[in-house]
This record gives sequence, C-alpha cells and structure tokens, in this order.
Amino acid sequence: MYRTHTCGELVISNKGEKVTLSGWIQRSRDLGGMTFVDLRDRYGITQLVFNLEINSDLCMQARKLGREFVVQVTGIVAERSNKNPRLATGDIEIIAENITVLNTSDIPPFTIEENTDGGDELRMKYRYLDLRRQNVRSNIILRHKMAQEVRRYLDGQGFIEVETPVLIKSTPEGARDYVVPSRLHHGEFYALPQSPQTFKQLLMVAGFDKYFQIVKCFRDEDLRADRQPEFTQIDCEMSFVHQDDILSTFEGLARHLFREIKGIEFDGPFPRISYDEAMRNYGSDKPDIRFGMKIIEITEAVRGKNFAVFDSAEYVGGICASRCAEYTRRQLDELTEFVKRPQIGAKGLVYARVEADGSVKSSIDKFYSADDLKRFADIMKATEGDLLLIMAGNKEKTLAALGELRLELGRRLGYRDASSYSPLWVTDFPLLEWDEETKRFYAKHHPFTAPKPEDMEYMRTNPGRVHANAYDLVINGTEIGGGSIRIHDPETQSLMFKTLGLSDEEAQKQFGFLLNAFRYGAPPHGGIAFGFDRWAAMLGGSETIRDFIAFPKNNQARDIMIDTPSSIKQEQLDELGIEIKKEKK
Amino acid sequence: MYRTHTCGELVISNKGEKVTLSGWIQRSRDLGGMTFVDLRDRYGITQLVFNLEINSDLCMQARKLGREFVVQVTGIVAERSNKNPRLATGDIEIIAENITVLNTSDIPPFTIEENTDGGDELRMKYRYLDLRRQNVRSNIILRHKMAQEVRRYLDGQGFIEVETPVLIKSTPEGARDYVVPSRLHHGEFYALPQSPQTFKQLLMVAGFDKYFQIVKCFRDEDLRADRQPEFTQIDCEMSFVHQDDILSTFEGLARHLFREIKGIEFDGPFPRISYDEAMRNYGSDKPDIRFGMKIIEITEAVRGKNFAVFDSAEYVGGICASRCAEYTRRQLDELTEFVKRPQIGAKGLVYARVEADGSVKSSIDKFYSADDLKRFADIMKATEGDLLLIMAGNKEKTLAALGELRLELGRRLGYRDASSYSPLWVTDFPLLEWDEETKRFYAKHHPFTAPKPEDMEYMRTNPGRVHANAYDLVINGTEIGGGSIRIHDPETQSLMFKTLGLSDEEAQKQFGFLLNAFRYGAPPHGGIAFGFDRWAAMLGGSETIRDFIAFPKNNQARDIMIDTPSSIKQEQLDELGIEIKKEKK
Repeated sequence: MYRTHTCGELVISNKGEKVTLSGWIQRSRDLGGMTFVDLRDRYGITQLVFNLEINSDLCMQARKLGREFVVQVTGIVAERSNKNPRLATGDIEIIAENITVLNTSDIPPFTIEENTDGGDELRMKYRYLDLRRQNVRSNIILRHKMAQEVRRYLDGQGFIEVETPVLIKSTPEGARDYVVPSRLHHGEFYALPQSPQTFKQLLMVAGFDKYFQIVKCFRDEDLRADRQPEFTQIDCEMSFVHQDDILSTFEGLARHLFREIKGIEFDGPFPRISYDEAMRNYGSDKPDIRFGMKIIEITEAVRGKNFAVFDSAEYVGGICASRCAEYTRRQLDELTEFVKRPQIGAKGLVYARVEADGSVKSSIDKFYSADDLKRFADIMKATEGDLLLIMAGNKEKTLAALGELRLELGRRLGYRDASSYSPLWVTDFPLLEWDEETKRFYAKHHPFTAPKPEDMEYMRTNPGRVHANAYDLVINGTEIGGGSIRIHDPETQSLMFKTLGLSDEEAQKQFGFLLNAFRYGAPPHGGIAFGFDRWAAMLGGSETIRDFIAFPKNNQARDIMIDTPSSIKQEQLDELGIEIKKEKK
Repeated sequence: MYRTHTCGELVISNKGEKVTLSGWIQRSRDLGGMTFVDLRDRYGITQLVFNLEINSDLCMQARKLGREFVVQVTGIVAERSNKNPRLATGDIEIIAENITVLNTSDIPPFTIEENTDGGDELRMKYRYLDLRRQNVRSNIILRHKMAQEVRRYLDGQGFIEVETPVLIKSTPEGARDYVVPSRLHHGEFYALPQSPQTFKQLLMVAGFDKYFQIVKCFRDEDLRADRQPEFTQIDCEMSFVHQDDILSTFEGLARHLFREIKGIEFDGPFPRISYDEAMRNYGSDKPDIRFGMKIIEITEAVRGKNFAVFDSAEYVGGICASRCAEYTRRQLDELTEFVKRPQIGAKGLVYARVEADGSVKSSIDKFYSADDLKRFADIMKATEGDLLLIMAGNKEKTLAALGELRLELGRRLGYRDASSYSPLWVTDFPLLEWDEETKRFYAKHHPFTAPKPEDMEYMRTNPGRVHANAYDLVINGTEIGGGSIRIHDPETQSLMFKTLGLSDEEAQKQFGFLLNAFRYGAPPHGGIAFGFDRWAAMLGGSETIRDFIAFPKNNQARDIMIDTPSSIKQEQLDELGIEIKKEKK
C-alpha cells in the first residue's frame, strides 16, 4: 500500500506515530515560515505541516504542490495547537518528513468544494471531478449503504436474488423499448427490459417463492426533467401471499432502511388509504401526508344561490388553510396565478377568510349571505383566522388542481420539511384507464395485475369500474414503489390482453411464454418494485435522482463525459445487417 | 399467507399442530385405503396422508390431483410409522383435513425430478419447469448465497458498490459490442459494456478508493460452447495499491467464499507462479495444480543420437506418469490419438517405461542406448513403474500439447476430483501479444494494463518483451479472475494506444475522456474482475455455466423460452431511423 492510514482516521491517540498517507491536495496555505496543506481522500482530510526553518527543501517542495496533485507523505502525528472540531482528524496534524508526488494535475475546470463554481454541464463533462466533491461522493456512498441494507433485509426474509436477462424481447405495451440488433440472426432484435416483470413471474411459476433483484431497467422515453434512460429498481415478488402479506413484508423493508440509514423509527403501522379516498381527500394518488389540509367537497352546499360558476359545476370543493386569514391581496393573487398556470389550468380561485370575530369575508359576498358563508366554513371545519380556498368545475380536474394548490400552500407554510418522512400505502387502484384519444383501455399498472376477485364480473361488462389489489408506497408525496397481486391463470391473462385490445395472435406472439407457463401450475403471487434512484434521493434529502447516480445521462439521454451515443463504424453496421436511413421519419 | 409453514420445516416437535401448507404435487401413491401425496415447495417436501375410510370424499379429491397441481392443504402433523431419514421432514406427515386446488397443471413436458427425462432443448424452452427441479434450483440459490457473501466481504473491507452505466460507447478493441440505436440522436448508437473497465478507473480518478460491482457484461461473440452473450462479473478496483495488496485482498475474498459456501479452509497462502513458469512447467497459463506431473524439458539431453525428430526439434520435453508403466498398447494408442486430434495437432508421442528392474523400455530403443534412456528417466525423475510421455517440435506448440496431455492423464488417473480445490495466482503476464495475421500487437489483458516499471524502457524498442503486473486467479485449471495494475498517466496510456496501432485521433475519439481524466490527478490503481457465472459453476461442482444462470441463452445466443431475438415493428424501425438490409454482407 501507498499508505499506512487513510486521511480520515488519525486521532490524538496516534500522537507520535510515524505514518504514511496518500491523497489529493485540497488546499495549501503559507503562513510565515509554515506551510499547511490539507490532504484529502475518500475518508477525510488531514492537515500536513511543513516548516521552512526545519526543512526548507521539503517546505519549498510542498509550496509547489498544486490543487488536486496526488501525493504520498510520510511524517509524525502531532497534536494541533488550534484544533478544528468540525474535522474528525481536527485534533492532529502530520509533521511531514518526506513527500512524493504520485501524479500532477492540471488546474480543475471548477473548484472541488461542496459549493463549487462549476455549472451543471461542466460538472457532467468532468463527472470524475464532480464525484470528488464530498457531497456528491456521500450521495453515492449512501446509495451503496442502502443497497447493502436492502439485500441484508430481504436475504434475512428468505428472498433469493436472481439475475434476470438484459437481452430480452420487445413488447409493445408501455413505454418504448431500447432494442439491440442481432448479428447472428439477421433482421431480428433483442430489447432491453423496462422491468423484469414477466421473468419474476416466471420465477414464481418455477417455485422460487421469494425473489428480489436490484436491477437496471431501460425506457426510451421522450425527455422529461429528472428521468434517466437507465434507472434502477428494487424488484420483488412473492408466492402464496395476499396483498396484506406483501404490504407488511415491504413495510418492514422501509422501516429497516429508515432505521439503518437515517436512524428514524416510525410509530405504528404505515397508514393505508384507498385510491378513491386519496383522490377525494388530496386530489392525488400520491398524497403528501406530512400535513392535513384535506380537500372538502361543498358541491351541494353552495348550490341554488344564483352563482352560476358554482351552480353549473360538477364539483365544488376547497381546502382550509389554517391561520392564513391574514394573507394579503398579493399573496392571494399569487395563489390564483399558481392555479391558472397551464400545468394546472384552473380558471380561478374563490377565497373566504374567517375573521377574528367569527364572521366570514369572501370574494363571493354578493352571491352568499353571511350565514351561507358561515355554513361553508363550518363544513370545511374552518375557525377564526383560517383561509378557505375554493375551486369549481369538472370533478377530476378540480380535485387535481386543489391537490396542487394544497401542495403549494404546504410548501409555503413550511409543512414539507425534507427531514421529516410520512410514508403511506395507497391501495385499491383501478385496474384500467380509459384513453379518450385512442379509445381504448390501458393498464393502470401493467397488464399482469389481477382484477379484484369481487370485480371479476365487470371485466366483460364494465371494465372501467374494475379495481385491483394494486398498491403504491408513497412517501412525502413521492411514489417510491408500486405493485400488485398478479394474474396467475391463462384465462384471466388472455381476457386482460383482450380488454387491452391485443388480439389472441398478438398476445401469443408477445406473451405466449407466460400464458404457456400459467398452464403448468402457477401459484398465486404478487410483488412490488421500488425506484431505487428515487428512494436514494429521498433519503439523501434531494429531489434530483441524477445526484445519486454515479454516471448519469443528461436530459437529452446523452452521456457528455464519454460522448455517447455516437457513430459506429460502417463495418459494424454491415455485420449487423442494418443501415441508417438518410431521412428519419 | 396461504400457509402457516413451508414444506421444509415441520419436524417431530410439531406433532399434533394444525398446519396449512401450499405447494406443488410432486407425486401421489394409492396404497389400499390410503393415499400418500408428496407436496413440494422451494423449502422441501412434506408427505400428506388421506384415509379413504375416515374421509372418503377428501381422499377421492386427493386421488384426482395431477402432478404439478398447486394446492393448499390443512391438516394435523402426525408421526410417521416408517420414517424417511433422507428428508428433513421425514419424521412426520400431515393427516389432511381439507384441500383446496389453487391451480391445475397440464402434464409437464418432462418429469420434474433430479434425473429428468427432458432433453436440453425442451428444458430450455420450459425453463420455468426446469427451475423447479431441486438440483437446478439449488444452483441458483448457491449463486444467490455467493453474491451475498461477496458483498458482505467487500463491504466489510470498505469497498463501495457503484452501478456503472449500461448504455455506453462502442470501442473497437477486444470482442464485438452489442449496440443500441438512439432514437433521439439519429444515426448514433450506444453500446453495451464488455466490462465496466474505464468507468471503474474513472471512479479511482474520482477518489472512490475501493470499488466493486456485481455486474452484467455483454459480448457479441461467435459461438463457442458454454459462452453466454450476457454474463456477470465481480468487478473490483482499488487505489494506492501495489500488486501484492490486490492479491491479498482478493485471496481473502476467495477464502471467504470457500469458507462460507463450501466449508473449506485453505492452509497457507495461495501459491504464486509467473506466467513464464506456468508455461514452462504446465504448458498453460491456467495450470491445474491439484496434481504435479510437471513438464520437464530434455531438449539438450536427447540431441546427437541421430534421431532426426528430436535433433531437429526446437523443444523436446515430457511428463512422467507415476505408476503407469503397465499401460497397455491400446491405452498408449489412445493417448497418441488424443494428442493428434486437430485441437491439439501433435504429430505423435514417444513413450518410455521404467520396468520393475529399473531398466527403461521405449518406442525409440533403436536410437538410444539403455544408458541414454536411464539418463532421461533420471532427468525426468522417473522411478520403477513410471511411464514417460515425450513430445518434440516447436516450443510453444509442444508445451501446449504436453499441457493438454498432462490434463488428460490427470483426468484418467483421477487426480482431478471436482470436490478438491487448488487455487493459484499466475502473475507477470506479458503486456502484449503479437498477431502474425494482422501483423500487430494486441493487449494480452486490455489496453489499460500498465507495463512493469522496469520494462518501460522496452515499450518503444521491443514491446514484445514487456511484462505487466497482471495476474490471474486460477482454480483447478480454470481462470476464475484476472486483473492488473493500470496505467494512470496520460503519456503511458497514449504510448500504449500507439503500440496497439491506434492513431492519436482514434485514441482521442474513443478514450479521450480517460486520457483527459488522467490529467487531473489520477492515483496509482489496479483491480481485478472475476467471472461470477464460472465461479458459481465451480463451487457447484459443474463445468457448465448455463446451469447457474436462471434464464440462459442457447449457443445460438437465443432465448428459446421467450423466443428472442425476434422481429420488431416497422414503426419501431422508423422511429429509430434504421432499416434492415435485404442481403446481409
């Protein structure tokens, strides 16, 4: 080894020891006859001292070291006169006796500090330098710890980690596949998996009973902020289970991770609400329940007072913002602007304040009496000092808009503290979603989710009302994972494909292997998959998954460090038997 | 849960308990008024009993259960009258009280037994049924355990598991890449990694110090037995280390795995021999040292006796097969045929027996006197009852042929017992290999391996004689892993690319990011990668890696279960901007 110790481990009890360290020059300061150098490695920073009087050659050598030079230093551990309590090694310094430059460095394009001067693009191009920054490195180490703890927990629960193939088959459902031309089979392609869904189900058919995998998945999607073409899932499946068994097993995983990684214990079981309830109370299937402020419907209560906007609305509802009656005109205008943004698309916002004397003042005073307003306030459980924000219109859209408004208010009121965590199970999702544009049903989760047994009768008559034993784990308003009880017989699976508009022939071509497998004793089974990047970001207190991926792609699906995708040689194309079209359609 | 216990856990102390099990019908036997059913799950087999007299309905129901039906059974644990000591649950049986068929099964296309009647092709097509067989399942579980233990060890040693990207850049060195057309960047491609080599080096530049990953790699190779287009590596890299540090760290990993998985402890450090020594003594860079029988050169000793074959040969050498003087004519002919096979391509084989009286009888008696032969026997350390097998010709080829002959003899003599393990480090590999056909050097390991410092002077003058601090871990004649100390400065890396015939421009285009990274303080580093599939197969006592991959491809790189590669839709091709050539070149 080029060292006896790392730069993060020497303490006062090592005083007097002769040690050798290796690392990078973080910074260097000349103070009179002394030169102080901070030497950095993954484990920490240790101060080196060079004394011009005692060893002028060595000191002059030290003064020539540039930032990010790689050096090996031998010296004696000494007690510091002015200790640095913020550093694990802050009680000591190394009186250098010898120094060897292992490598030099050009001047880095940005500073290797927690608060760097480098822009996004530059840091992506020099990702290997960005990763030297303590905060970026600690994200990747957090991710490592999570991965080990996920495995420790699931291994302890009897789960078997099985690697499923990366070169699989293209399927038309869902997002676009990345495909891989086959050289050996001209004109044919592999596809990269969007998830190992069918393989994990085959493992259940194979009797593996409990499976997991931390696995790369791929989606060739159009660009959206903070999506990556390759991302990582914690993918899990179990046999002979009901929904409750899955929820309790993976609630255990979540508790384990929060305990081991964050030192957080949750009291009692995670709350569970149905999809319908989530939509009704929060206007979202992934509510942030770090705060209340539920949406309350007042459609019936407001009718018949000649306020056309409310009278004609399918739905009227609102939220009660506690202690916000003091909001200024300007603050209210901001909220109105917020809901009018195209992403939300509401027409406007009605407000009502409950004054200190209990009276209610509102922007719709001319349609509603003081008593009417008082009644609405009572329904919405508003008391003195509260602000009511009310919207009306199409039910689904209004609920969604109120949901967004609720989150915005939560943010403004400081209810969404990144260091507090509120997990929640959302259950009983609809099986299918109707798409007006293509006039067909799509699977809400995926085409392998089982209809609830009690809803089976509607599969042929009214598929839209069929619910599923499908569930999401939501933490702080972010979907961390989702899963379902699966179909395990070929008849239901065929019916599902038919409902999704897949002909028997297509179903056989795409999923024949699964339908076939179900004919040989498939056990009842279900599972869940977690977005590992997202969960890591959440535990790291960030909203950007890119910060938790060692070598992410940019939002053009490009790795600008290695400059890919890129052209390949004509011989490669020839061997693959493909050519590039001049004009892309 | 559909069960209170698994089929592998009930023992005599559970007697009298009411339990519920779920699993597959392994077999069923009707004996008079009793029906015995073996119920199987991942954990074991439990016997169910149905009594026609006590509950005829239930018993009749049981008699209708087919093989591989999935059932749920409730009953009472009872002591067996005739116990089965080969079964963990062999002391008990379940007196069934209720049975529910959870799923039926068609008759499987082959028997789900350790010794199945299914051929390779059929078992690949129905891999989910093949995986139900206890021996196949236990291979996959062994692999799981290995993966957990690899991580436990490396995590304990301070290694960080980092996921490197799967969508990377095509590089012309080495085997063919699988490529992935980019939809967003017309005419451009990603490539799937043959290994994360450059990324792990960038992680060293980034200061990660110790990295590992259990990671899928991809090679679009022509067909060879027991190669898979996607395979798994245990990929590792360390900074500030010399070769010795790497060998001792990963010798620790090997010891850990053998201890935890096989209960085997090795005495003393693993032997280390140089590449040159391995070639000289074993005719192979991956010698099987479970047995001796080293190759001994006798080129000089046999010269000058007018035997043209030996006199004209660049090299004459042989092996001494202990206690084989009794070999019959037929056995000797078999060995001669063996070395004459095209894969080995030797011209013939000379033998000499040391008789009980110490005299030596040989097929070349007419050229050599009794004393000559006695002298050769002494050089080759043969004593009474030993057989000498001698070959002559081009040095490299003859050594290789003798190496193959040695392995064959070792096999015939029972020296190659799959349950004994002899690990070995082979070190000091040549840096480069000259290829006569293309008249250029190729990297023996890969183009990032560092020349030995003492050989740097020959890099420009005589690259063929440059050695590297490159090493392989060989167990029982199989290369389990290999690695090297890497180049960590841009000048040496450029020189290496130049030596490999890569122009500056090409080097910049392909590896500019790495050359660039080396300009910002790259630490000295090195690493190793292990073939995980191969290692699992070895610990599982098999030579076939396919048996240790849950869903392998066949030797046409095809997954015949899901039928891929396969055609994709015209719209997909259009979106990607590529088309398939009518005639492949």
